[in-house]
Amino acid sequence: MSADEFDVIRTWFAPLAKDAAARGLKDDAAVLESSGRLVITTDAIVEGVHFLPQDPIATVAMKAVRVNVSDLIAKGARPRYALLTLIWPDTRPAEDLRYFGDAIAGEFETFGISMLGGDTTATKGPLTVSVTLFGEPLGPRTPARADALAGDDVWLAGGDIGSAWMGLQLRTGAMGMAELRRERDEAAARAESEALAAEMPDFLRLPGEEFDAEAAWLQSLYLAPMLHTECAGLVAAFARASMDVSDGLVADARKLAAASNVALRIEANAIPFAPPALRWAFSGGDVRKLISGGDDYVVLFTAAPTDRAAIAALDADGSLRLSRIGVAEAGEGVRMVDRQGAALPLDEGGHAHKLGR
Amino acid sequence: MSADEFDVIRTWFAPLAKDAAARGLKDDAAVLESSGRLVITTDAIVEGVHFLPQDPIATVAMKAVRVNVSDLIAKGARPRYALLTLIWPDTRPAEDLRYFGDAIAGEFETFGISMLGGDTTATKGPLTVSVTLFGEPLGPRTPARADALAGDDVWLAGGDIGSAWMGLQLRTGAMGMAELRRERDEAAARAESEALAAEMPDFLRLPGEEFDAEAAWLQSLYLAPMLHTECAGLVAAFARASMDVSDGLVADARKLAAASNVALRIEANAIPFAPPALRWAFSGGDVRKLISGGDDYVVLFTAAPTDRAAIAALDADGSLRLSRIGVAEAGEGVRMVDRQGAALPLDEGGHAHKLGR
Repeated sequence: MSADEFDVIRTWFAPLAKDAAARGLKDDAAVLESSGRLVITTDAIVEGVHFLPQDPIATVAMKAVRVNVSDLIAKGARPRYALLTLIWPDTRPAEDLRYFGDAIAGEFETFGISMLGGDTTATKGPLTVSVTLFGEPLGPRTPARADALAGDDVWLAGGDIGSAWMGLQLRTGAMGMAELRRERDEAAARAESEALAAEMPDFLRLPGEEFDAEAAWLQSLYLAPMLHTECAGLVAAFARASMDVSDGLVADARKLAAASNVALRIEANAIPFAPPALRWAFSGGDVRKLISGGDDYVVLFTAAPTDRAAIAALDADGSLRLSRIGVAEAGEGVRMVDRQGAALPLDEGGHAHKLGR
Repeated sequence: MSADEFDVIRTWFAPLAKDAAARGLKDDAAVLESSGRLVITTDAIVEGVHFLPQDPIATVAMKAVRVNVSDLIAKGARPRYALLTLIWPDTRPAEDLRYFGDAIAGEFETFGISMLGGDTTATKGPLTVSVTLFGEPLGPRTPARADALAGDDVWLAGGDIGSAWMGLQLRTGAMGMAELRRERDEAAARAESEALAAEMPDFLRLPGEEFDAEAAWLQSLYLAPMLHTECAGLVAAFARASMDVSDGLVADARKLAAASNVALRIEANAIPFAPPALRWAFSGGDVRKLISGGDDYVVLFTAAPTDRAAIAALDADGSLRLSRIGVAEAGEGVRMVDRQGAALPLDEGGHAHKLGR
């Protein structure tokens, strides 16, 4: 099978164009009748840069959508429309287009997104997927990075820090199962893995290893972030400054601090780490790698201390992984402190893609 | 020099973010307060597919913007905002970013575009530039491909057919100067070339040839289409169906015919060809290559015959290259006829990027 761009659009993408604005993807432009505020974000993911060539095509589709949904959540907005630009390598089987299309359809269903338009083309290079999302704000203001005030509480919401980084290390072989097993209750881990093994896809198995549930979970977080869309309402209601953590907690906290002209003081012990990350850090792993690794896709926001109880009440069951991790102060930069208030040294950290030679 | 993505955004793109909606490109999303209709189009260009690796970086930037402006013109809209996704190869000199940025700035100035946001990332593959434009409609309706009625006149506006295709042939060496010179007045051509030679850039010179003004002009049309933004007003005022011709006149006319459930009857002798294309066709060149080659970026529209005189009056000086090339009829497909009404056989023609292996 070989498909051309028009087949792909007709078969997989046109059914996702549920809004009249998209003109059924049969025209050269979308025509959006809009009144009010649109929150617009665009992020591209490139094979070999943002995902691995061997990653499943379905999770590539999921990641392309979710890195953008994550931006909207952090701005207190709900996704409404998408543009999708798909740049498909000549060397990839055309059959994979079906899995890609099915995964996009699933994501759009999950997040309530209607396809507005896009572009599809071939390339001799890496698979590249660019998604633009148009969101509807859930509150009267859309928090910027620049809106933190000295005295604000600093919060994280929507997930753990460092888990996706560990998943990437396992996936590339930079971290082995031996490291993951340090300090682990192996009997419990084996029982859980045996219970899940039958239903888990092959791509979550590490080469030459028995299926391991914890390694699979960490990898799945790298492959496609787990998002909590409920955080968007929380941001809309309470956030002063807000952004998503995608390039590592330290690097992104520095961006928020710089944009707001404040310093952020973060208590390391208040950062939400999942059990494998905690075990790894306490058995000799470098915690700085967890807080600067990236791919977390959680929300970093600040809010007035007077809203502290109201915010905490929104996550009474802990499912949003809401954590108050520090305070904004006069000054600049990010300071990480331990339980005793002593500063933990940070290196530069964070991703900035170098461009060109 | 090596630049990171934040340098590039700060230095070259942030100054183009003239509207508050872009938040100075310092945030994770744009926030557009909009009331009314937005015409939205997105097109990506990929090195080795839509432009040649040796093409100058400035014309790549121009082409990336103009292929999208062309869509807006054909929808009767004026460009307002852009998202720019730049995927920059590790092997390209970072210095080229400056020329790219300068060219984007020039285009945005020319077309009245304000930068709304975007994404910048590295790749091990080909240079890829994706532009999304948001346009403001100049008239009460935005014509679709599907809006032609049997009995409509069929028009082209904004340029010639086949010139950009000839430019590409010259640029790749598929067509040599000997072919271009057939039937040409060499004395006049040499005089024009000598007058222009000193001021023309090297990239418009063919290897091993004297500078040739006509070859340079044809190549320049391939490198970056020459657009007539005045056509947008004409479309808004008079067009029933409208689209831009980018994949070849025949292929795009077929799309318009199919979407509108009509047949298009096109008179070959009414198609606007520039002098070199006419000479080439009359001296043995296959006219079907001119009408299916692509990269023309002109407007194909239909309009009521009662508007014929009013439309023609808008191009009294001929600068819009306005041509009435045929009629829409009951039926389907595209029929090309000669002066005597005899059908000219057409092959399938037109570009559809095959995806995958």
